[in-house]
Amino acid sequence: MKPFVVLSTDFGLKDGAVCSVMGVIKSIDPEIEIYNLTHEVTKFCTWTASYRLYQSMPFWPKGTIFVSVVDPGVGTPRRACVAKTSNGYYVVTPDNGSLTLVKEKFGIDEVREIDETRNRLLGAGTDDVAIFHGRDLFGYCGGKLAAGLIDFEGVGPAYPVEEIVTIPFPKPVVKPGCAQGNVAMICPNFGCVGTNINYQDFVNAGFALGDTVNVLVKHNDEVKFEGPVLFHRSFGYVAKGEPILYNNELNWLDLSLNEKNMGETYGITYGPEWTIRIWK
Amino acid sequence: MKPFVVLSTDFGLKDGAVCSVMGVIKSIDPEIEIYNLTHEVTKFCTWTASYRLYQSMPFWPKGTIFVSVVDPGVGTPRRACVAKTSNGYYVVTPDNGSLTLVKEKFGIDEVREIDETRNRLLGAGTDDVAIFHGRDLFGYCGGKLAAGLIDFEGVGPAYPVEEIVTIPFPKPVVKPGCAQGNVAMICPNFGCVGTNINYQDFVNAGFALGDTVNVLVKHNDEVKFEGPVLFHRSFGYVAKGEPILYNNELNWLDLSLNEKNMGETYGITYGPEWTIRIWK
Amino acid sequence: MKPFVVLSTDFGLKDGAVCSVMGVIKSIDPEIEIYNLTHEVTKFCTWTASYRLYQSMPFWPKGTIFVSVVDPGVGTPRRACVAKTSNGYYVVTPDNGSLTLVKEKFGIDEVREIDETRNRLLGAGTDDVAIFHGRDLFGYCGGKLAAGLIDFEGVGPAYPVEEIVTIPFPKPVVKPGCAQGNVAMICPNFGCVGTNINYQDFVNAGFALGDTVNVLVKHNDEVKFEGPVLFHRSFGYVAKGEPILYNNELNWLDLSLNEKNMGETYGITYGPEWTIRIWK
Repeated sequence: MKPFVVLSTDFGLKDGAVCSVMGVIKSIDPEIEIYNLTHEVTKFCTWTASYRLYQSMPFWPKGTIFVSVVDPGVGTPRRACVAKTSNGYYVVTPDNGSLTLVKEKFGIDEVREIDETRNRLLGAGTDDVAIFHGRDLFGYCGGKLAAGLIDFEGVGPAYPVEEIVTIPFPKPVVKPGCAQGNVAMICPNFGCVGTNINYQDFVNAGFALGDTVNVLVKHNDEVKFEGPVLFHRSFGYVAKGEPILYNNELNWLDLSLNEKNMGETYGITYGPEWTIRIWK
Repeated sequence: MKPFVVLSTDFGLKDGAVCSVMGVIKSIDPEIEIYNLTHEVTKFCTWTASYRLYQSMPFWPKGTIFVSVVDPGVGTPRRACVAKTSNGYYVVTPDNGSLTLVKEKFGIDEVREIDETRNRLLGAGTDDVAIFHGRDLFGYCGGKLAAGLIDFEGVGPAYPVEEIVTIPFPKPVVKPGCAQGNVAMICPNFGCVGTNINYQDFVNAGFALGDTVNVLVKHNDEVKFEGPVLFHRSFGYVAKGEPILYNNELNWLDLSLNEKNMGETYGITYGPEWTIRIWK
Repeated sequence: MKPFVVLSTDFGLKDGAVCSVMGVIKSIDPEIEIYNLTHEVTKFCTWTASYRLYQSMPFWPKGTIFVSVVDPGVGTPRRACVAKTSNGYYVVTPDNGSLTLVKEKFGIDEVREIDETRNRLLGAGTDDVAIFHGRDLFGYCGGKLAAGLIDFEGVGPAYPVEEIVTIPFPKPVVKPGCAQGNVAMICPNFGCVGTNINYQDFVNAGFALGDTVNVLVKHNDEVKFEGPVLFHRSFGYVAKGEPILYNNELNWLDLSLNEKNMGETYGITYGPEWTIRIWK
């Protein structure tokens, strides 16, 4: 069985862009099954692209090929690459930060720059097109890899893993009775405020399910949320609309409201300038 | 060939949640084909979840496994179950109302509570996660069932079908020349106002295609729409923007505007407090 | 291997409509793989439907069957057809303009009206439904064709290709140093303003990558954008927020802002009353 190709982009699904990427892959090998991660990555945001890979990659069968294209620099000299991850996957992507959390959390064993002379769609009427590498380069190269027409070495020349572009992000500090972290993500659907504070570290710092803790969320120096919050297993342990702190799907602490959008309610978004502090 | 798995949730497609559910299923058995019903069920609304199953289930091959997760009570003691429907399908779902219309319209032969000790994802780094049963429990259990690793009995202990949680909803009253019903749904795309009045009952009550009828839509005691409406086959029998009453895809009467959103135009939504009255 | 079925509609993905179309096809033949082009074609807009087919069709394997349903006239006497394109595909669609760019760009060898007595879903409880041909007629007929249960002749009687409904659209005029065209599309995701001016024609008219050109966009007589714009390969050749003219994925000129939505920023949409003029 051929490896799966899983697509992640900021193209949206309202036009024919994603469908043309799929067509290119199916034309290489009709047996390749294609699935979508998401096509609504925050536009131009390679941090979010890396977060989506981190969120879903390890649940897929080993060998799955992720084609991740958030590519504001398309057509300029940024590198196009395929990374081989330490947990057994491939990521075909512009090397522009989208590998940040993949490298941090799973590790990358090897990375190769895509040789455009061999692994770009040519002769299909798109040779003069420089703005759609999702279709003409990343999709095409990912399809060839999935089809077995090239192996990883066939992607192009290797370059040092240390050269992979990563986005600097603050590290959490967890001490007995106190944790300070960063708002790493807002769930775009439910509005949960995702931190980078590891659940087990937090428990080891003396916090227990059922505790009511103090929480402070700031955007730089501006307080956005402050108050006591129950730390428990899930939403339903508080009344609707009330705040709750819990272990999220990635074993990071989440701050949320029960059946209400926390990000919108308090005007909280994410990025290095957003901090969260939790103490007893 | 393995049965299909069809996913329905309120997770949205903007993040990696649905993709991680798919990955879990593909990791159980890469041959399982996964399709999406929708991931935009009205958030936390188990009535809508049940409506979506009702809307699409019978068109799929017998044996198809629907994994339906609208789960505001995730991580609390609500039951997680698999229902075997009288028309030949399985539904893997929290037992929280999402089976309402499935039970009402198709019948449920048997229901089993998912044994979490055997049919929950374990050892994948998510054992401490209580907020994502779509991935860790329902998706995983549905995947095992589709793969044939368990049969229906292997889900867990049966419990009485009578105990399935259902949402009470008003029944229509159709008499010669007059029908009174409920607004059961608004089409989230086109804004059509969906009633629970059966088309054939309506015709049997003396209404004929081509009739102009009187229609009254109320929210509790407040009139939201009132006026004469043509009852005919489809939208195009009236001018653009004009109201039309017709048989919808589920053989229920729909009230709509031709190429215009009726729900938005008149501020009509759905639920037990919404009534529609039609008379000659 | 069976041909793929690729779906394109204006149904959205928020309800069960698309899923029921998929179920109908899978019930005809579970081996048929179904992919989505988009389900967010501008509502009721057959021009956009034709544009989406044009955008993605040629990248798919020959023989792929596109089921394209934007069907404001559903249930009225408009023709339902299957077109066989000159580049090797089938399109199952209402004949209401959705074939415009397919015919113009790829050519149509033959077109047949769907015989509803043989190629409509019957006996599935939807015989009285006139408003969902996407499921009951186009999806069903496309599924039979993909399954090989009928061949193209089995669709129904042929009719003259000249009778296919097409939407008139202005042709561009490209002369040395000056090009006048039409805004044919706005990218619904990034807001790029898509023209119908062919890139190669434009280059042949004396424009070169790196030139700064004058651009004027008008809605009838109203100026919506006017100013000098760099003509280059891709977005990243100008600063964020600055305008750029480049060859788009279809070898048509696009006008855009780097990482900013041009359509929204300048209130530009598309259609025959929108013109763009470019000169040295």
